[in-house]
This record gives sequence, structure tokens and C-alpha cells, in this order.
Amino acid sequence: MMQTHGEVPAQETVDDASPDESRLQPLIQPWPLAGSIGKTDLGLILAGDGVYVKDALGRSLIDGPAGMWCVNVGHRHPSIADALRDQAMTLTYTSPWYTSNNPARELAQMLADRAPGDLKHVFLTTGGSSAVETALRLMQFYNNVRGRPQKKLIVSRQGAYHGSTYLSASLNGRPRDHDWMDGATELARKLTCPDPFRRPEGLSIDAFEDFLEDEFRTMIEKEGADRIGAFIAEPVQASGGVLIPTKAYLTRMQAVCREHDILFIADEVVTAFGRLGHIFASQAVFGVEPDMITFAKGVTSGYFPLGGVMVSARLFDELRRSNHPDAMFAHGLTYSSHPIGCAVAIRNIELLENGILDHARAIAPYFQERLKTLEDLALVGEVRGIGLMAGIECVADREHNNPLQIDIEVGKRIDRHCQDLGLLVRPLINMCVMSPPLVINKAQVDSVVEILRQGISKTMDDLRAEGLWAG
Amino acid sequence: MMQTHGEVPAQETVDDASPDESRLQPLIQPWPLAGSIGKTDLGLILAGDGVYVKDALGRSLIDGPAGMWCVNVGHRHPSIADALRDQAMTLTYTSPWYTSNNPARELAQMLADRAPGDLKHVFLTTGGSSAVETALRLMQFYNNVRGRPQKKLIVSRQGAYHGSTYLSASLNGRPRDHDWMDGATELARKLTCPDPFRRPEGLSIDAFEDFLEDEFRTMIEKEGADRIGAFIAEPVQASGGVLIPTKAYLTRMQAVCREHDILFIADEVVTAFGRLGHIFASQAVFGVEPDMITFAKGVTSGYFPLGGVMVSARLFDELRRSNHPDAMFAHGLTYSSHPIGCAVAIRNIELLENGILDHARAIAPYFQERLKTLEDLALVGEVRGIGLMAGIECVADREHNNPLQIDIEVGKRIDRHCQDLGLLVRPLINMCVMSPPLVINKAQVDSVVEILRQGISKTMDDLRAEGLWAG
Repeated sequence: MMQTHGEVPAQETVDDASPDESRLQPLIQPWPLAGSIGKTDLGLILAGDGVYVKDALGRSLIDGPAGMWCVNVGHRHPSIADALRDQAMTLTYTSPWYTSNNPARELAQMLADRAPGDLKHVFLTTGGSSAVETALRLMQFYNNVRGRPQKKLIVSRQGAYHGSTYLSASLNGRPRDHDWMDGATELARKLTCPDPFRRPEGLSIDAFEDFLEDEFRTMIEKEGADRIGAFIAEPVQASGGVLIPTKAYLTRMQAVCREHDILFIADEVVTAFGRLGHIFASQAVFGVEPDMITFAKGVTSGYFPLGGVMVSARLFDELRRSNHPDAMFAHGLTYSSHPIGCAVAIRNIELLENGILDHARAIAPYFQERLKTLEDLALVGEVRGIGLMAGIECVADREHNNPLQIDIEVGKRIDRHCQDLGLLVRPLINMCVMSPPLVINKAQVDSVVEILRQGISKTMDDLRAEGLWAG
Repeated sequence: MMQTHGEVPAQETVDDASPDESRLQPLIQPWPLAGSIGKTDLGLILAGDGVYVKDALGRSLIDGPAGMWCVNVGHRHPSIADALRDQAMTLTYTSPWYTSNNPARELAQMLADRAPGDLKHVFLTTGGSSAVETALRLMQFYNNVRGRPQKKLIVSRQGAYHGSTYLSASLNGRPRDHDWMDGATELARKLTCPDPFRRPEGLSIDAFEDFLEDEFRTMIEKEGADRIGAFIAEPVQASGGVLIPTKAYLTRMQAVCREHDILFIADEVVTAFGRLGHIFASQAVFGVEPDMITFAKGVTSGYFPLGGVMVSARLFDELRRSNHPDAMFAHGLTYSSHPIGCAVAIRNIELLENGILDHARAIAPYFQERLKTLEDLALVGEVRGIGLMAGIECVADREHNNPLQIDIEVGKRIDRHCQDLGLLVRPLINMCVMSPPLVINKAQVDSVVEILRQGISKTMDDLRAEGLWAG
């Protein structure tokens, strides 16, 4: 079989300066550096099963990030593997431009039944970036049809991640992501990152929330509500650092949007489909009813590239009643409404609802509580989380929570130790992110925490020995 | 099974003006109209097998468009269905940011071995739009790193189709696609559609080719070569109307690009993976060696959303040697390098190379020759094609080839008759497009042509009876 060659990979980035054609890789992976493009060789994963993956060194590792916040029902689920095969042996593909198919219709109905408020329609895509593009292009179309073509600015936040296409990436607010990349900056505006841990000094949590709302209001005043089309927010900023908003932040931001006829888009690519214990988290966890919800990842547990946008019935009603019934929303993907992807999503939602969501809700407090114990380690500034997502933020100094220097790459150091001990970590500069498959059990949570404790402790020893940290 | 409910669908767009909640569809399909959004009910396809699909009315139809130019090895291929299941039971997913997997590595090597010139690297995505976005963002990054941030304009052509994200869609040149949509117009420039059939009156084919090259040179002079980053072209404009370029058009355009250090991007989403009898068509059919080739669709025969960009080793070498080794190409998708998608693509390429490409090359002349016989029908202005793609263009009047009025929807009328006779057509305003699964045999080609003849003849009768056509 092609997938089990078993050769041992180089584990590190090859970064010598002389070009050596024989070492260039055909496969380019995401986020390469100019100086080593084509030369990076990442660790090879050979197989997966439940919460575990197996690498080419023969190690069995708990999949801490569930791939990339996505393998929610776990690896190698036979029921999903069967759904892939069965649907391929029934209907491979049919064009969504001219035809429809039962898995897509059934999935759309399931999603409409589960989405909050009046989100009764769905447009299906191939992942998060295309879901966000769809939401934004729909906002543009909606305002064109409603005769307000100037209402197009999109407000996001520092620390946000919304995708990797030209427009969706323009909304990203993570450091370094824009340094060498172009974007539709003329369309994007950014608010302060709603990170309670790194809020301005001297501000209470309540005052910080006031500040964030005021900042939004000030921006609207400055730009003009008639120029702002949408506000987009991950309910929990995920790759920005697992940032859990303060209690009323999202409801307050939504109220501001409603006041000014600004569409509120909840980007639930990470938070939906069980990560926070519910199919959608916007209303169930945060009490908001967005005008659109974008989703991807967990909807198929990563087995198939599928994403989409839930859309408010009110928006479509306004479009239908407009003076331009022939206005065409010229948007759609070859793989919109893919029958195999939809069959996988249906099976996945059935699995989630037949026990996995209950399990996720039941185990989440234990997961969070156990991880929180890592705060006694001197390198750890904060452990925070919600549902089955958590971030462990390392700091240079616990008194002031000063960040460690980026080039220490503390996350990568911890990951390396943890991999030796049996845990794959998602390192994020100064953080370790945990978002395991939702089927993780208590003993596996205990392993995760024990390995993290050892990995962080070893990293503390290393940093001390190298004179990089005084803790 | 979820996919075989068998209910009989409404076949037509519901367009009465009064909102009737009970008739609204949860599923929104591509390219809806504002006035009927959520109310459109498309014909339901239940199953597929080889070149056939079966609809909810019990009809067995030859899949004329192969879904959407994509089901190249045919529907319900057991070997691909097995690849889906087997890879899901081996490795579901692993993050391409931190890890690698064997199917992705193996596929990348296969593609590098088969791509023309020095296209030795590949970046994998989830389809055509994300492939084009990747190519364009890479061009932007490349020019930023090389210290020429003003070299960013993208030249495409009228009639082009490159995708459905904000930036990729900006390059589309089909009528009506931009009427109500926003785009990065500041970055896009368009040349004349290289359509020999509708070339300016009085111009010979040779003079038309000269005109197209001159137009490009004039544009470069006007805009400045130092401001143009890329020229992007489908070797055969597909959804623009199956437009086959004149003999030296592509090589001449490429020469102009080379002269001015403009990247030449061949968008082979339709033409690659067998549609023209080869894995890639740029060099094999048209004699060009692009700097990048975008692909999708046929690479998995539509069984899995996968696309990508082949990239010239020269570009990456320039990036590696640049003064900015730490410049980060902040780009990538969760589903880049998806192990299941890559396993499907590998199996698909094996199938193509174990007979299907040979078959496609062998049957293409018969396919084209038989279709060409339809030119004796008075409604048909031209039948044109190459490989296993063809377009039948209907006209109001054969003497001057005047187009029929759009609202006659002649393509849809022909499609309706053909569906009753056993053939699914891709209607394109005044055209019928044929791009069947590559495994189509001679008897099936004969059926296609016979059904088209009847369908077009019936449409001629209808149009005459309704007084819409004087032919």
C-alpha cells in the first residue's frame, strides 16, 4: 500500500543555504519560508486510530490538535469510511449548477434544523476559506441588490484567523501573516483582540469589555455605518491563541451590529460540530444569533473537505422582495453540495448526536480542570479553555506575564519533548494548543496532562541550561 | 440508505412572487437569482455508473458534461471507492502545517514527474478556485520578495472562467458574472476573447492571432511591464464556450510574457487529467511551458475536492536565493495535502495511465467527427472541439452567425428534450457543451450524437412554432 512505506523522515527543517536539487521536495506544505521553500521535510504520519496517530519513527502519539481542530469523531472511524465508499458506489458526483442530490438535500435540512434563529439556508463549499469567501461575497451581493453598494467594509479583530484566500486572509489579524502578503486592505478594518489575558494594563475585565464595545462604536462613527457591511468573529479565537471572550462581549457586539444594520458573521469553523459540545456554539454557548455562520472542519471530522455558510431566512427574504429579481449571485464551486462529502457529514452528525456530543460535554470539565493544574509550572502564564479546546500560554515572567521571545520557539520545544513522550502538540509560538478528538477518555486526558507536565518541565530545564529563561 | 429516497422532484424554477415558507429549500445551489433564492428546485440525480446517471424520474441518462468536466474515469468506479475507504481506514487526516503523509508525497512526485518543463513542485488545495488563489497569491509573494511590489496586475481574457472567490472571480470574463458582484478590479485587466468563431468581422484567422498578440503588447506598453505580474489563460476556454485557440496563439502569448518577465499561468482545471488525452495539456497539446499550471476536477475524477498548482523550480530557486530568507508565504488550507484526497488522485492517475488516456486519445477523433455532423442542422452555427470536449453553438442565422436572444434559452430547451431521450446536456445560454467521461465508447458516442440531433431538431420545431426563429 502506498501509505505505509515506512521510511524514516527527516524531522527538521533543512536550512543550509546552498541549493541541492536532490534534496528539494516536490510537495510544498503551507506557510513555507522563502529561504527554504521546497527544502522543508516534515515528520511523516503513517496511520491513525481513534485519538492516536502513528508516525514513521514507530511512535504512537495522542493527536492533541485532532489534526487541525478537525478530527472530531476520531481517526479511522469505520462508519465514516463506509459512508465514503458507499456514496462513491451510489452517486460519485453531480453538478450543483443543474442538478441536486439527496445527501446534499438531507444535510441541508439537518443543518437548518440545528442552526440557531432563522438560519434556515445553507450554501455548501469545500472548507473554511471558501465558506468565508461565500459569506463575504453574499454580503457584497446583498448590499448591491439593496441599493447600497458602498456598504462593504468588513470588520474583524486582531488575532483573528478567517482563511487563506485573498479576501478571507485580509481579515486575519495574527502577527506576521501579512508581512509579505497582499490583501484587500481597502475592505478590511480591525478591532482590538478581545484577549482578556493580554488586555491593556490596569483595565478590569468589565472595563475591558466596555472598551471593546466603545472601540467598535467609535469605528462605526468614524467610518460610517452606511459603509460597514459585516462584522466577522470567531466566537473563540482559535489559532489566535484560544481566546475566550468575556461574558457579554459577543452579545454586546451583536447588539451594536443590529443597531447599525451590520451583518454579524460568526466564524464557527473551529467551534461548531462538537468542539464546544454542540452542533453550533453561537447560541448554545454564547447566546448570539448571527446573520450567518460559517463552518467547516468538524462537519466531516476532517474526512472530506466540506464547509459552508448558514444564512438567515430574513436576508434571502429581502433579496426575493427586492426590485432586482434577476440579479444573479454569480458564486458557486464545482464541489458545492458534493454528494460524497454530504454523505460523510450526515454520518458524522449522526455519530456526534449518538453519544459523542454528550461525551464531549461530560468530559470537558475534567479536561479543563486537569489541564489547569499545569499552571503550577513556572513557565506557564495561563491555561485557558472551553469545551474541548485549550491553550497553555508560556511566559517569560509570571509576575508581569511578559511574553517569551519568539525565536525561542517555546511551543516547538515543548512539542518535541511531548512527541518523545507520546503526545502530538500544536505549537503556536509561545503556546501549546490542545483540541483532541472528542472521543478522548479520562485516562487519555490524564496522559495528555502528565506528558505536558513532563514536556514543559524538560523545556524549563533546557531553557535554564541555555540561559534563555530565568524562571 | 439516505441517497435513494426516490421522491420525484420539481424540475423547474419556482418563480411566483409571493413568499411561501413551506416551499423554501434549505439547500442553496450555485448561481441563484435574487428573486428566487431558496425557491429553486433542481432535478434530482440518484445514482451513477460509468458514463450513466439515473435521475429521480427513473431515467437513465448519458452524463454529457461528466458532472462538471470532472468525472473522467466514470461514475461508481470500485477502485476509487476502495481507495477512499482504505485511506480513511489507514490515515484519516494529518495537519500539513506540522506533518506530512505518504499519499501526499507520492502524489507530488507523480505530478512533478508528469508536468512539463521545470514544474517540479506542487502546492495542493481543495479545487480550482483555491488553486488559482494559490497561484495568484504566490505571484504576489514572489514579487514582494523580489523587491517589485508594484508588479501585481493580472491579465486574463474575456470569456475566461477562473473561479468563485473574490480574487479568482475578478479574472472571469463571462457576460453577466460581474453585474451584481464585487471584484478586485484594480488588479485585473482583460484582453479580447480568443474566439476564432466570433472574431472581428473581416479578420482572417492569422490576422486575428496577430491582433491578439498586438493587443497584449499594447496593454503592456500602456500599463508598464513592471506593473504586470501574471497572464492567466485556460488553454481551451471551457465554460466560456469551448474556445479552441488558433494554432500559435498560446506560444505567442507565452513569448510575450517571457519578454516582459510576466508569469504565464495555464489554468488547466478542465484540460488536464485526460480531457485532451494527456495528464497535462499545456506542452503535449499546445507546446507551451507555463510558469505555473493550476489543476483540479479530473485529478480525482470529481470523487474528492482536490486541486493544486504546479510551480516552476526556477521561481522557488529565486525565492531561496533572495535577500529575504525569512519571508513567509502565509498561505495554506486545512485540507492541503489531504491523505484521502491524495490517495484518490494517485489511484485515479493510475487508472488514467492504465488504458483510459489511450482510449481517450483513440476515441477523440471519432467523437469530434460524429459531433461535427450536427452542423447540417439549420440551428447549429458551429460544432467545435478538441479531445473529449466539444461545444455546439446555436445561431439565429447561419449566414451571419448572429446569436440567438439570451432569453430564448436555447441550450436549456435542447437539454430538456435530450433528457427525455436519455442524455444530460450542459446548457450554456446558446450552446450545448459535451465533455463526457473519458471511458465513453463508440456506441455511446453514437447515442449522444443521435439524441442531440433529435433534441436540436425538436427545439427547431418548437422555436418555429413559437415564432422565435426563422431558420
